[in-house]
Amino acid sequence: MSRFWSELAAGLTPYVPGEQPRGTGLVKLNTNENPYPPAPGVLEALAAVSTDQLRRYPDPQSTQLREALAQREGLLPEQVFIGNGSDEVLAHTFAGLLKHGAPLLFPDVTYSFYPVWAAMYTVDCRPIPLREDFSIDVDDYAAGQGAVLLPNPNAPTGVLLPLAEIRRLLEANPDAVVVIDEAYVDFGGESAVRLVPEYDNLLVVQTTSKARSLAGLRVGMAYGHVDLIEALVRVKDSFNSYPLDSVAQQAALASVQDEAWFRRCCDQVIATRERSAARLAEMGFDVLPSAANFLFARHPQHAAKDLFTALRERKIIVRYFDKPRISEYLRISVGTDAEMDAFCTALEDIL
Amino acid sequence: MSRFWSELAAGLTPYVPGEQPRGTGLVKLNTNENPYPPAPGVLEALAAVSTDQLRRYPDPQSTQLREALAQREGLLPEQVFIGNGSDEVLAHTFAGLLKHGAPLLFPDVTYSFYPVWAAMYTVDCRPIPLREDFSIDVDDYAAGQGAVLLPNPNAPTGVLLPLAEIRRLLEANPDAVVVIDEAYVDFGGESAVRLVPEYDNLLVVQTTSKARSLAGLRVGMAYGHVDLIEALVRVKDSFNSYPLDSVAQQAALASVQDEAWFRRCCDQVIATRERSAARLAEMGFDVLPSAANFLFARHPQHAAKDLFTALRERKIIVRYFDKPRISEYLRISVGTDAEMDAFCTALEDIL
Repeated sequence: MSRFWSELAAGLTPYVPGEQPRGTGLVKLNTNENPYPPAPGVLEALAAVSTDQLRRYPDPQSTQLREALAQREGLLPEQVFIGNGSDEVLAHTFAGLLKHGAPLLFPDVTYSFYPVWAAMYTVDCRPIPLREDFSIDVDDYAAGQGAVLLPNPNAPTGVLLPLAEIRRLLEANPDAVVVIDEAYVDFGGESAVRLVPEYDNLLVVQTTSKARSLAGLRVGMAYGHVDLIEALVRVKDSFNSYPLDSVAQQAALASVQDEAWFRRCCDQVIATRERSAARLAEMGFDVLPSAANFLFARHPQHAAKDLFTALRERKIIVRYFDKPRISEYLRISVGTDAEMDAFCTALEDIL
Repeated sequence: MSRFWSELAAGLTPYVPGEQPRGTGLVKLNTNENPYPPAPGVLEALAAVSTDQLRRYPDPQSTQLREALAQREGLLPEQVFIGNGSDEVLAHTFAGLLKHGAPLLFPDVTYSFYPVWAAMYTVDCRPIPLREDFSIDVDDYAAGQGAVLLPNPNAPTGVLLPLAEIRRLLEANPDAVVVIDEAYVDFGGESAVRLVPEYDNLLVVQTTSKARSLAGLRVGMAYGHVDLIEALVRVKDSFNSYPLDSVAQQAALASVQDEAWFRRCCDQVIATRERSAARLAEMGFDVLPSAANFLFARHPQHAAKDLFTALRERKIIVRYFDKPRISEYLRISVGTDAEMDAFCTALEDIL
């Protein structure tokens, strides 16, 4: 604290990202990174960067990348927004679309950055309890709110809301922006992007960090009605006109152009997830049904915190949240089969 | 405008960046890019990026880069902040350090993003007129303000404020944050970073976009007392924990490690600037004394707007600002000698 801080800076409770340890020899299953490399074209794109691209400003609108994503989704480029990771996209969404007279609703157990952004942009928000089984009841988001924000699948639970339920939510809220945060949708969910042409109040946020193995590159996107996208552009151009460097634009484009690689990596992660979930169940864990690239599980006889610590001693990092309702759960990112075997073997040893 | 926009989004007047034309055949002297390539190590760093670096999240603190910059400046890493371009650093500075009960002061003729950020973060600001010759009188920033923000050299004028004057400003304002925006300081100015250990109210913002030929990479930095840096970290971690991708971190590090290349490029730009300024003066232009990588000039007999248009027809792009006090000036980025010769020859033809 310092007298030079603004009132805002003094009042913030910043987000704490998952540990990014330097050094090797660790099985890192704590930040939902993809265990497989990005499409081969990505490295080629990096090697092809010219000095002119470096010394000149990037295209502030990421035009080529937006065009490629729009084409993939059957939308117009004006229905696509690009940001420096989906976190930046979501931050701009809070500033431009989620702040209204009535409160913003999101689940009580969800991505822990949401309340941080709400504080950053002084958005009045109200957490809505998930059902006992951690599923979302869309009837709880029925009326009176300024906006709705749902991750699908939810984090850190991995639980999926079917597209029919999202449609029901949109129908019930024609006058409120509904944001679906689909960071993990490619691992078994059905994207709401296909609903964009039907609903002018829908914004869908995605990322290249998970399914496209590009967490190190920071590229996120949003799809929605041109009016919603325009709000994000206005906020972006009042914050930082050039959110994506030229290298990231080129590399992300190469990833989008390799649909087969993308699908194969997702399928591999899904197969490993199901195999690992079965093995955890055999060990006595309660494992939530996951449509994401992580598992959320608890053991009736072992405290999650103890398991987390014991795994850490064995050089295996998972994520533990010391928060209401979920402090008995571990979130385990799905790694390679070999990493998950090491994880399961260590757990068997601990139990 | 849409009913879904927040009041903030509706009220913004976004920044308009200089044109980034696609296609070639243009002499581009409009966005103060460096005409020389970045240090050779930068391309090598890009080629050396591994797939593990891409699929994993970057170091959220840009530790290696901060350490290298701290060492270069004789500071601690905790006195260095890194952002996605100096625009992001400045945006966080508005949110975290420039918003107070009393107004923020900055020059009336300056970087046109300042009033945009003030609106974005609802910072009460008061533009202070420059002297008739576009120089800053630090006595105008003497008391009663919440904070002071000065670019040095100023943009788009290129006029430098000597370090002794900045020291006088700091001495006169021990209770207000003083931010010196040094985007162009390497082209003839003396950096205020050396004053950081002496003044706890000083924040110095720099960029790799100009002197380091890395506009395409988006890396900016701030130097200041640990308490000031902590405010920026708090804002960053309430907005986007991972502002810099792994590729940009590695590439910027390679640039910082090549001091000789950096100095040589700056010296070449300075030499070309002086040669070009002399040639413009010969043509009858009033040329402001520039310590930046651009020239700010007007011709007593020719409207700047007409010159801008005539140059554009000859495929030469400079920048024209249709704004009070400066609408008779052109801002010309310093290119290579060949580009400046083409520019001067075209001008002679037009005149």
